[in-house]
Formats: sequence, structure tokens, C-alpha cells
Amino acid sequence: MPGKLYYPQCTVFIVKGKTVSGNTFGNIFRITTFGESHGPALGVIIDGCPAGLLLDENVIQKELDRRRPGEPGNPAATPRFEPDKAEILSGVFNGTTTGTPIAILIKNTSQHSKDYTDISEKFRPGHADFSYFEKYGLRDYRGGGRSSGRETAARVAAGAVAKAFLREKGIFIKAWTEEAAGIKCGTYDESEIDNNSMKAPDKEAAGRMLESIDKLRMDGDSAGGIVAARIHGKIPAGLGEPVFDKLDALLGQAVLSIGAVKGIEFGAGFETARMKGSESNDPLSTGSEGEILFGKNNAGGILGGISSGAEIRFRVAVKPVPSIRKVQKTINTAKKEAEIAVHGRHDVCLCPRIVPVVEAMAALVITDLYLRNLASRI
Amino acid sequence: MPGKLYYPQCTVFIVKGKTVSGNTFGNIFRITTFGESHGPALGVIIDGCPAGLLLDENVIQKELDRRRPGEPGNPAATPRFEPDKAEILSGVFNGTTTGTPIAILIKNTSQHSKDYTDISEKFRPGHADFSYFEKYGLRDYRGGGRSSGRETAARVAAGAVAKAFLREKGIFIKAWTEEAAGIKCGTYDESEIDNNSMKAPDKEAAGRMLESIDKLRMDGDSAGGIVAARIHGKIPAGLGEPVFDKLDALLGQAVLSIGAVKGIEFGAGFETARMKGSESNDPLSTGSEGEILFGKNNAGGILGGISSGAEIRFRVAVKPVPSIRKVQKTINTAKKEAEIAVHGRHDVCLCPRIVPVVEAMAALVITDLYLRNLASRI
Amino acid sequence: MPGKLYYPQCTVFIVKGKTVSGNTFGNIFRITTFGESHGPALGVIIDGCPAGLLLDENVIQKELDRRRPGEPGNPAATPRFEPDKAEILSGVFNGTTTGTPIAILIKNTSQHSKDYTDISEKFRPGHADFSYFEKYGLRDYRGGGRSSGRETAARVAAGAVAKAFLREKGIFIKAWTEEAAGIKCGTYDESEIDNNSMKAPDKEAAGRMLESIDKLRMDGDSAGGIVAARIHGKIPAGLGEPVFDKLDALLGQAVLSIGAVKGIEFGAGFETARMKGSESNDPLSTGSEGEILFGKNNAGGILGGISSGAEIRFRVAVKPVPSIRKVQKTINTAKKEAEIAVHGRHDVCLCPRIVPVVEAMAALVITDLYLRNLASRI
Amino acid sequence: MPGKLYYPQCTVFIVKGKTVSGNTFGNIFRITTFGESHGPALGVIIDGCPAGLLLDENVIQKELDRRRPGEPGNPAATPRFEPDKAEILSGVFNGTTTGTPIAILIKNTSQHSKDYTDISEKFRPGHADFSYFEKYGLRDYRGGGRSSGRETAARVAAGAVAKAFLREKGIFIKAWTEEAAGIKCGTYDESEIDNNSMKAPDKEAAGRMLESIDKLRMDGDSAGGIVAARIHGKIPAGLGEPVFDKLDALLGQAVLSIGAVKGIEFGAGFETARMKGSESNDPLSTGSEGEILFGKNNAGGILGGISSGAEIRFRVAVKPVPSIRKVQKTINTAKKEAEIAVHGRHDVCLCPRIVPVVEAMAALVITDLYLRNLASRI
Repeated sequence: MPGKLYYPQCTVFIVKGKTVSGNTFGNIFRITTFGESHGPALGVIIDGCPAGLLLDENVIQKELDRRRPGEPGNPAATPRFEPDKAEILSGVFNGTTTGTPIAILIKNTSQHSKDYTDISEKFRPGHADFSYFEKYGLRDYRGGGRSSGRETAARVAAGAVAKAFLREKGIFIKAWTEEAAGIKCGTYDESEIDNNSMKAPDKEAAGRMLESIDKLRMDGDSAGGIVAARIHGKIPAGLGEPVFDKLDALLGQAVLSIGAVKGIEFGAGFETARMKGSESNDPLSTGSEGEILFGKNNAGGILGGISSGAEIRFRVAVKPVPSIRKVQKTINTAKKEAEIAVHGRHDVCLCPRIVPVVEAMAALVITDLYLRNLASRI
Repeated sequence: MPGKLYYPQCTVFIVKGKTVSGNTFGNIFRITTFGESHGPALGVIIDGCPAGLLLDENVIQKELDRRRPGEPGNPAATPRFEPDKAEILSGVFNGTTTGTPIAILIKNTSQHSKDYTDISEKFRPGHADFSYFEKYGLRDYRGGGRSSGRETAARVAAGAVAKAFLREKGIFIKAWTEEAAGIKCGTYDESEIDNNSMKAPDKEAAGRMLESIDKLRMDGDSAGGIVAARIHGKIPAGLGEPVFDKLDALLGQAVLSIGAVKGIEFGAGFETARMKGSESNDPLSTGSEGEILFGKNNAGGILGGISSGAEIRFRVAVKPVPSIRKVQKTINTAKKEAEIAVHGRHDVCLCPRIVPVVEAMAALVITDLYLRNLASRI
Repeated sequence: MPGKLYYPQCTVFIVKGKTVSGNTFGNIFRITTFGESHGPALGVIIDGCPAGLLLDENVIQKELDRRRPGEPGNPAATPRFEPDKAEILSGVFNGTTTGTPIAILIKNTSQHSKDYTDISEKFRPGHADFSYFEKYGLRDYRGGGRSSGRETAARVAAGAVAKAFLREKGIFIKAWTEEAAGIKCGTYDESEIDNNSMKAPDKEAAGRMLESIDKLRMDGDSAGGIVAARIHGKIPAGLGEPVFDKLDALLGQAVLSIGAVKGIEFGAGFETARMKGSESNDPLSTGSEGEILFGKNNAGGILGGISSGAEIRFRVAVKPVPSIRKVQKTINTAKKEAEIAVHGRHDVCLCPRIVPVVEAMAALVITDLYLRNLASRI
Repeated sequence: MPGKLYYPQCTVFIVKGKTVSGNTFGNIFRITTFGESHGPALGVIIDGCPAGLLLDENVIQKELDRRRPGEPGNPAATPRFEPDKAEILSGVFNGTTTGTPIAILIKNTSQHSKDYTDISEKFRPGHADFSYFEKYGLRDYRGGGRSSGRETAARVAAGAVAKAFLREKGIFIKAWTEEAAGIKCGTYDESEIDNNSMKAPDKEAAGRMLESIDKLRMDGDSAGGIVAARIHGKIPAGLGEPVFDKLDALLGQAVLSIGAVKGIEFGAGFETARMKGSESNDPLSTGSEGEILFGKNNAGGILGGISSGAEIRFRVAVKPVPSIRKVQKTINTAKKEAEIAVHGRHDVCLCPRIVPVVEAMAALVITDLYLRNLASRI
């Protein structure tokens, strides 16, 4: 299905002043992020976090460190140095949340933009710069403005607070790289995930992924992959609202709002399309202590958009990094054909960096729905 | 990954009064739906539809008729008779919208609930009734309340207004059954889609789908499938907001909020996970009249969460209908093990009924983002 | 302070398509109204009403009847006949709310518009038709569209549900005409309010108000007045959010959104501007059973935007009906000077009709804040 | 109307964890404030400010300086030193807004809290501490948390951006002290307002106000007053939405959300209650150059909730500062009767400090409605 660009009619958007809206997410536990990758700082305000939660900057820093690229010996990531340091500016007193808005600040330190100048007049295929240029009529050649992957640092900071809340309720969220550069994990060892720079639960597969990625890097190419996630522990049945704010609908928005994600499926997902009902349905039974059991989990823990109490499972398609050194055909800002080879330090495979962002976005959704459930009691 | 239900901790939700929230969708073009499948009526208020749009009840009726089940000779659908008749109560004067809220009413006529009584004390595997019971502490044995598929009639009515708006802008939305009961379409003839009861673009494949479905019906079983969609015509580049309200994120929420949908992917979707960047990226070039062309459309018309001007493409996984006549293991409301065989008239494959709902939800997202783009001009 | 109209610069708004936004009010208990005074129907959807509340159409009808004009012997009101009949379309089952959206419909019966034709080309001084024309570039000569006083019927219907909720919590809202046509009430007998067509708590003053109003009607003139309100019973301390959603801020928006209201004050209101702190402050003490008492109530039950537990009190300035038979100077739609005498049946003093609307709007605010308080528990 | 506190029933709110919600204001031009008076910083995020607006920190600083107390020779204000310094963290590039969220930070410097310790166990009459204690079950003895007047610094910073936007459109907002300690202004000299520490437009009256206030300070008492405002210049007719988001309704919420404000009236306000329609209505005519004129401005520039193009006028009742040195009766946190004399440095009359906050809140409302008007074009 080759796509023809209907260029003439979008002239309507080429007007001078515009806003970049949609910076708020959530209903009761509600975050607003701000900041450009090359401005003085980025950050987030969390409005609606309940009082009484133990919280300090270490809780947030730990999560920020997990998304940091460039750990030694990690060929999947770029070696740029971004020492994201979280500062809590409000909403916490004596190590406890007060119920007031929590503002978290992350100062930008390395604001050099010289790496980008050579590509400032050509559109990188597969990259947001073309659609941004069409929308806003200008390019932030310094590294993407609000579209930069760096914006996700604010999400991870907010997600760290949500995860702390959920931990107190006995709910845990874990994401990992399930597949990268065509190599799949064969085993699941949760303790291994944060041990390797692929964030894969299978040590041996992680090693082979890194080898493949190293080879692609030398070829000037990049790799896609699959990130998977589970939400487990004391997940109550009943999370999710039955019409537009279904649990899977909100997780869908949350996760698809992460750059490079091209699809999401819950439980058996696309496989259910080829099943019969008698195969797809998860039978219910009871265990020895009267607990309710599902015989399998094709539903991924979600029935009718509401959590069933079974583990919540989803999988996410991550496309290859579009910025590659290999020569590609493109056009320039004057709409003339050109060739481009994107130099500079770029990630080869985004999966390990997306893992903590997926956890953060899922934590925001679960926390918000948890609080909405409480709100509906009278 | 068998799922153990953590039942004890959800007792917190078993309190008497609760609200079913999340009945509103959209930002500027904003809809609120209401109505139970067995109450006097259901409907929708559209707030934010611009004045000056030609609109009458036929425009809405035409779409409602497309989601109606039970056309003669359609073994995929249930033969229940639901003559959904749209009435416009406000917001339209002399066949033109006035800019005020548009209220659309669809009266319920057949409110008999006897078909459901035999299953009133057992949970149907794969069905929402278990998670609803856990959330709300009660069951609406009359047919699902807000979780009923009938709620989507209100979405289709609102979507008809959005489609009318988009048509005036030269933007068209088309969905179809791409695969059902394991049978895939091989050809794409758009004019064929509304000609067969599978809503498939391949007449011959549609015939084989119906045969398979007929056989499954006789076996007391059901089938899943894939619904695909394209948004084409004068799609402007620039739809979608760069952070949480990305075009794919909002389409994701919209489509995953339809019952039985277990996954969504954009463009090449999950396939991109196994591609290299040099394969995944869509090269840009220019045509003979200076128009911009994408060499292929792995991106599905979306780059960085913003439309690129290329055709927008996505695919949706639809699970099999969970209500089947075949005997299944389950538990009853007293949490004892039991067996269940769901009698009554049920759809075997939901794809044809989901097709117009997917179009409606996509139309709501595109219209809202289109108006948000206009709103950001100064 | 004579006002010069800066006409030229508003040309920017004279464009064809526009929306009439702002039809939703509330956060958790959230209403959206729809309907024009001369369309087929008007109504409201309430989203967020908790399940388990006893509700039937009589509860709503009783309130609608209180705002109906034209009771025999009521010279304050117009004798037009508007038999507002409430129908509940969803959200109620067996006389109890289910937590799903409650849609209430009020059909319009008398849709004749001939009374308005003679004024279709001149702007009525003091009336919304000039500002509407400037905003929307058109006039709904049929009676005001969304600006019609009839829109308040939908608010009263929604308010009836809120009042039913508050009654269960032991909270009561009562408004009355405190002053009209220059005549003030001297006594307060709550049982008298619904006994006279002025809705005044002082029978004798009500009689004199009606005499004055009758005289003004004969002169082709009209009268303003004061509506006062108290919220009493088991009002919990703690209603209201400390920053933008203070209790008085939200009551202010709610009440000032009623047509003809030109001011609101809480407790001693504008009088506090001339007090010393030692006079203005309400001292706290304890009663014989340990209950907390305020020595007086200059604060009107609100401290720092949050209810103190004392009775909530506010007063509302209602301007005279602008449509009068007396000849006035004006301009016509061609922007030429003209004279106008507004014929037809119009209210002389709006106070009695505004009384139930003030109660409804206050009930919506109190209910919403009550539920927000519940929502913030964990 | 002495108020009896219904204490027992508010026990429902005395639960441990709670959120302080309602920190966001506005629809398209939308602000979220954060920060406690004694935490590390306070600030605001503005989401929805159009790109292309000239903005630097001086624009914001200038407004912040106007609300600063303690200028030499100002007996109305407390001599505490608060050097509010605005830092822009995002959303501005090369002195121009980019359309992305604008984060503004104001660091707290003097965080000593010792002045408050002596009153930590008694409720100050007329002060928010009683209602806060009842709502949240705890007191922030360090100076009010989110209820502190210092929170308004964030509003003033956001308002400075809104005022810069409006200035470009030729719209100006000016507030002033019209009356304080019983002394009214007799003349209006706009250039005088920022010349005296009362922010009064009448130099001589300002002098007498300061004398009165000095005397009250020595008596350990305080004073109320009236703040008035005008919005003038190229005000377009058409600002305001016709139902719940009327211009006066939103200005009402905005201004009543400022602490110590007990009432608001538009145009002739409460006086219209005693007028006849023939007196209250503002006649329309045309001027020598065809411009439209209103003969007077009882409407305060607002008809049917929508700006008419005439100057917008409103007046605000400000109660006396509740913290006074004079001995008052009260109760303590153990609910026993007590006496209190509030020592420490407090303002005597809040009017001059409220003036820039009223301007800021009005600017936020006008900017938001201006952008909503643009948004509704198609």
C-alpha cells in the first residue's frame, strides 16, 4: 500500500502561531509535563497524588537511572551522557506526600546542538521531523523539542511516584525486552532483567541480541523489537471503566504515546483472531483454598475493559531507530529529492530505553484507575 | 502464563454505591453517551460540532443501519431485530448544525430479557460479567447495561456526524473485515465491502468465511478475526499532538474501547519489530507534479504521532464471541465450580458489526484532532 | 463610566462556522445540557451520579413545576404555558440510580415563534441579542437558542437529582426572593416561600411586591430584586478545594451563569469591606454538648474557600427584565439608530423564576464537592 | 443568622490520606500551579499559550514586583522580605514563546516558620485554619501550605503572560483600590495607581487610607475594602460562552478564588436590583464615525454572559485581614474555649496586594475566552 502525500490541502495549517497541546495525562492522578530537550530544564507536575505516601528523590532517581543510556558496555545505546537528576520542588514534606501538587524538576546540562546541524535541511525518513515541519511550519533542529525522547524522562519521574503508590497496595509492574533484532527470549528470569543492558529476562538471549546489534551498528543500520509487560501482585478485579475508559483503552493510549511504538496487544492479542471461542475463553475454577483461578490467560487479565484479577499482560511492537548511517532517499525542506546519511551517536535498538517508560505509563494508568474506583464509593 | 485471581484484596470495591464513569470522549468535538440496552432509550450528546454542517437524520440512520445485525442470509450475525431509529433533538435547524449541542436519541423497542435468565447465576468465561460483578457487586442480568454491544449504536450515531464533517473536508474512513475464522481476504474491492454480510472486500473470501462461520455455529462455537481500516483522501499532514495525544495513541484508545478488541497495530505494526531501520523507514521522493511521495507506508501514515499526509492504516484483532453453546467450565456467583452452555441467539463472529464502530471511533478522533489544529491558530 | 463600543476590531469573529461551547458543568457529578427553546426537546445528561439513590420522575417534576411561570394570579410572571414534563431515559432501574449516565428529556410543546418577529431587526437594550449577534454573526429570532431562560429547565432537572442526593445526606438548600421592586422581606417564614408566587418568605411583603410589579407591568416597565439562599442541615466542614475550586468560587461561577444575575456575595459580603477585622471575624466557642459554635456568620459558612460547617449563605443581585414595552433608544442590525418597544408576554421580575435555578446550581456545586471529598480518601 | 457548627457528621472526612485538588484553571490557556509557601519553590505551568508571543523574564518580574509587600513607607503591608524571582524553564526560545508548555519557577528563600508557633494550637477566627483542619485533619502550622497568599505569586506570573498576549491584541486590564478602611476614592487618575502603596487612583484618598490603616495597626485591628477593575481597549464583542462558561461566571470563579474576597458585582451590580428596566438597560446609539455607543454601562460590558464590546467593569469586596493582635474568643484544637491574639507581621488591609492578583485572574479568563473564540472558527 504505497502512500501518496496529499500535500496541497495541508496549507491550511501553515500559519504562524500554534500551540503544542496534549501535555496532560490522567484524570484523578493527573500529570502535566513540560520542557524541551535543549532548554534549561524539563519536568512534571503531578496533581492528585494522595497524601501520606512515603516519597523522596531517591525513589525517583532510581527509575530515572534505569532509562539512562550509555552504561559502559551497552552497545544498544548511545554513549551520550545525560545525568538526569530529579529535584522535588513541592508536595512532599518530611519524606511524605502532602496531597498538594508534586513538582519534579530535571535540569538539562549538556545543551550542545552541533550534532544536528548537518541534517537541518533534509527530512530523515521514518522520523518525526517531516510531520512536525508540516504541522508547525518550522523545525527545532536542536533535537526535537517536545518530540524528543528526552521528554520521557518526565514521564519516568511521574511513573516512579505512581509505582511507589502501587507498591504500597501490593501491585507491581515489570516490563522487559522480549525480542530484539530478531532474537527472542526463551526463558523468563525476572532478576536478570536489570542485569543486562538489553533489559532482557534471558541472559543468553541478551548476549546474542547485543552481538546482532553491534553488527547492525557497524553496518549503519538499526533494529526493532518487542517489549512485554506484566502487572501482578494484588491486582484487584474492577480496574477500568466500562465505556471509553476501559483498562485496555487507556493502557493503549498510554503506551502508544511513546515514540517508536507501532502496536499493542493484550493477552493472546492478535492470536485470538484465529482462535475459536472454545479456545480463546479462559475457564474459571476454584483452588484448594477457595481462591478463584483462571485456567489460562488469553484475556491478559482484562474482560470487558475491566481487570479480572488475573495478571495483566501486554506486548508492544517497537520499530527500528529511524536515524541510521546508511544512505537513504529523502527530500529536503525545499521539497527537492536528496540523499541522507544520519551521523552522530544514536541508539541502535530502542527496546531497553522503552522498558522503563512502558512501566511508567502503565503505572500512571493503573494508579489513576485505582483512585477512580475509590472515588466512586459513597 | 496461567493467571491466579487475587480475590481477597478486591473486597475493598464491594461497596454499595458506585458510578460508571468514562462516558465522555474527545476534547473539542466531545461526545457523551448514555443508555442501557434494556432501558427506554440510548443516545449521545455531541458538544463542539461546528455550525454550518449539513445534517439530517438520514445521514445518521444510514450508518446505524450498517451496524444492524440480522440481515437475511447473514449467518455471522444474530437474527434479533433492533430497528435503531435516530432522532435529532437539538443542535440542527433547517438541516444545518447550529453549533449548539446535538442530542441524538435511539429508542429501545424490544426490551424482553428472558433469554438471559438461565445464565444469571454463572459467569460466562471470556465475558465481562465476571469483572463487572467484581467491580460493581451486582450483575445486570438483562443484557449488560453499559457493557452491552448496543451502547456502540450511540457511538455510530456520533461517528456519522463526524464522518459528515470529514467528508466536507475530503477525508474518508473505510474499515472492513480482513480475516475471519482463519480465512483471509486476497483482494481489495472497496465497493464489495457493503455488499456482503461479512463486510469483506473480497467476495469469494466472504463466501468461505460465511461457510466456516455456519459450521462453527452448528458446533456451538465462535470465531475471531481481523478488522482493518484506512483513512484517506485529503488527509492533512499535522493531525495529532506530540506528547500524550499522539494520533496513534488516541486512535488506540478509541479502538481498544470497543468490546472484543484485543490489539491494534499501525502500518506494518508488529512486523516492524523484526525489520532493520533501512527496511522499516519509508523513503520520501517527489512526483511528476512536485507532490511528495512515500515509497511505501510501513508507518501507516503516522510519524512521531502526527499524520504525515500518507494514508493512515491500522489493523485490529477481534477475539471470538465468548458466548458459545459448547459446554465450558466456570464458577457461579457463590464461587462454586459449575458448567455452562450459553444458549440464545448470539453472533458467531463480531467483525462485521465492529466494522462501522471502528469507522465511527476513527472519525471521532480525526475530527477532534482536525478541530484542535484549527484551534491552535492565532 | 459611559462605554464606547470598540466595534471594528471584533470583525475577526464574524466568520461563518462556530460552536456554542461550555455546556458541561461539574467535575465528578458532571452535567451536560442540550436543547433550544424552539427545537423538539431539551434535556441533560448527568454523568457521575452514584448508584443506589432513590429517584423517579416525580422528584424531578416537582422541581420543574416550581420554576414554571404563569400560575394563576401571579402578575410577576408571563402567562405562557410551558408544561415541562420530565422523562428519565437511562441510569435508573426500579426507582434507583444505577451509576450509569442519567439522561433526562423535556419535550418542547409550544414552538410558535410569531411573538418575536417584530423585534427581529432591532437589538433590545440590556438583552443578549446584541452580544450574540456580534459573536455568532446571526440571530436566533425564535427565542434565544441556548441563551433562552428555558435552558434553565435542564439545570433544574439535574439539580433535582443533586438535591435528592443531598437530602439523603441531611443537607438542604433553600433560596427565596428577599427583595423585589424595592420591597424587602422583613420576616423569614420558610414554609411561606412556596406559598406565594413571589417565592418570598414574608407573606405581607410578597403582597406588596406583587402590587408594585402589577403597576410596573401597566407602565410597560420591569423590576429587579435580590435572591438569597441558605445551605443548611448536616453540612460537613471541608467542602471546597483550596486553590481555584474554592466553594465560593464554584458557587460564584454556578450562580453568575444564570441569566440576569449581576452580582453575588457570601455572608456579610460587601458589608465586610467596611468592617474592621475585630467586627468581621466570627468568634468560635463550644456549646453545652461540646458542639462547636460560631458567634455570628459574617463568613457565610466559608473560610478560605472551604465550608466551616456553619450555614452557607449567599445573596444574588437580579437585574430587571430587559424586555419592556416602554419605548427605548437602540440600533438595528444595519447599525442605524432606531426606537424599540418590546411587546409580547414577558416576566416583569425574574426573582421567583430564578429561585429554583439558584437552588439547582447550588445543589450541583455542593454535590460535586461532596463527591470530590469522598474521592480524595484512600 | 448565628451559625451552629454541625460537627459530628463531618467525621467522615477525618481519614488519613487526601489530595488537595483543583490546582488547574482554564480551558485552552490552562494553568496548573504548585508549591507551598515554605517548600523549596512554587511555580506554574501554562499549557496552551500560542507560539510567537514575545516573552522574557522581565515581563513576569515586573508583575511579581507589583504584588510584593513591604515597600518602604507602606503601612498597609507587612515588612517581610520576599524577593520573588521568576525563572522561565521551558516554552520560550530566543525571547519568543514556542507553543510548548511554559514552566515558571519562583524559588522560596526565607523559610523560617517561627512566627507561627504560638498559634499552632488555636484556631484564628475568620482564618482558613479551622476549615482546613476539619477537611484535612492536620494543620500546616508553617504558614498555610496551598492556602497561603503566597500561592498567588504563581497566578501573577501566569497572568503576566496572559497580559502580554492581550497587550498584543490591544486589550488592557487595570485594577485598583477603590475603597479601604471606609475611605473611598473620589477621582480616577490611572497613572497614580502604581504611585502609592494603596494602589489607589486618588492620591489624596490614598493618603487618608494609609493614616486610617496606621491607626488600625496600632489598635491591633485590620480593615477591609473594595477593589475595582476595568478591562478596556480593543475588547471584542463576543467573549464568553452562552451557558455555564459565561464571561461573568468565569470572572466570578476566577476572582472569588482569591482569598479574602467575599463578593463580586458587574457593572451597576447590586444597584440594578433596585432599578426599573427602563433605568437599568443601556441604550444603544451610533457615533459620528458610525461606531456603536452605549449611553451608559450598567451592564459592565456584559450582556447574556458575552462581552458587548463596551468596557468590562467589576467590583470586588475584600474582607479585613483576619489575623489581628486584638484578643478574640476562639477554641483550640482540643475543642476547648480559648483566647487568641495573633502576633507577628501581618498586612492590615489586603487591597493593594489583591490588585495585581485580580488583574492576573481577569487576564487568564479573557485570554482563555479569546482563544476559545478563535478555536470555534472553521
